[in-house]
Amino acid sequence: MKGQVSISNATIDRLPLYFRTLRAIHDEGIDIVSSDELGGRLGITPEQLRKDLAAFGQFGKKGVGYYVNELKRNIGEILGLDHHWNMAVIGIGHLGSALANYQNFVALGFRLVALFDRDPHVIGTTINHVKVEDAKDLGRIVRERDIHIGIIAVPAAFAQEVADCLAESGILGIWNFAPVKMSVPDGIYIVNEDLSVGLSSLSYHITHG
Amino acid sequence: MKGQVSISNATIDRLPLYFRTLRAIHDEGIDIVSSDELGGRLGITPEQLRKDLAAFGQFGKKGVGYYVNELKRNIGEILGLDHHWNMAVIGIGHLGSALANYQNFVALGFRLVALFDRDPHVIGTTINHVKVEDAKDLGRIVRERDIHIGIIAVPAAFAQEVADCLAESGILGIWNFAPVKMSVPDGIYIVNEDLSVGLSSLSYHITHG
Repeated sequence: MKGQVSISNATIDRLPLYFRTLRAIHDEGIDIVSSDELGGRLGITPEQLRKDLAAFGQFGKKGVGYYVNELKRNIGEILGLDHHWNMAVIGIGHLGSALANYQNFVALGFRLVALFDRDPHVIGTTINHVKVEDAKDLGRIVRERDIHIGIIAVPAAFAQEVADCLAESGILGIWNFAPVKMSVPDGIYIVNEDLSVGLSSLSYHITHG
Repeated sequence: MKGQVSISNATIDRLPLYFRTLRAIHDEGIDIVSSDELGGRLGITPEQLRKDLAAFGQFGKKGVGYYVNELKRNIGEILGLDHHWNMAVIGIGHLGSALANYQNFVALGFRLVALFDRDPHVIGTTINHVKVEDAKDLGRIVRERDIHIGIIAVPAAFAQEVADCLAESGILGIWNFAPVKMSVPDGIYIVNEDLSVGLSSLSYHITHG
């Protein structure tokens, strides 16, 4: 990304959708896609698509289209998916179990390397070939296994405590599913996931037909 | 929304975040918020905020700020949250169970009125005061209980079949967590949720610091 023009947050937010859609098109055996077709699948205009992609370089060929595999690889690199980040899930309730089992993460190159809980009945069980370990060993294991991303799926009351421990242990990013606003030191990036956003968007669309 | 100017998809996507943030500010006992403060909490510029909100009417007062409760109520109405939509979750595995337990939906006015699975061991159990019923009764119950939104949390291979049944039974919207692209008749709105989007965004930010 060195020397590149600055990219708007809205464009960055669309990149994972581009990547996912290009992967699907690639899996269908399609080598070249027009901006009309790609935009149509993404639900955005070809103009917006061309504008977004122009921020990253020259991927299309006039009158031909985009080379699917090349564009997919480039966007994957921009997203940092080639880093193969090591992840841990903390809190193995229903949501944590679902996240530990989510196959799309593996397909994107993320590596699930640890699971944590504090319930003795849950510790020692295995999900997706990974054993659940005692949350009291979180800090040590994050350092030992070079874990980059911590996924917090504990109840709201314990989320800040978990975030503090992750921060002290050198985590780079936190993906937070607990419905609470947390503070983390500068240099750690936090994404607060709120599932009600998708549902509210659906409500808007069925309201306004 | 009658007679109102058309609103961009990007603005619509931000409305649930506005609503959530305004609710948090309201819960803190704050009555009036400046566009700087509100924009800061949302991570967008005050200019973008003013532009977004201008599409819906006159909520701010120059030199004073936005009336939190009024703006929250208005955005809630725009999102259709005052409809109190009836919802069903289909597929009560880990993800379906987590969704059935998600308290934020209730706080937004959504009503969970049915749960479905086809596993005899799961049918008859209760989550969040709602009993899991046999998926073979899905169509009948959707009609009887006037269910507006179907949340699909079944394996990919069964998702289209569930969507077809929901569509035939008069559902308005589908929130799909199965990692598969589905087709539904015109007039039914579908939101495909992909959890890997949030994780990819986190990857981007920790890659580019």
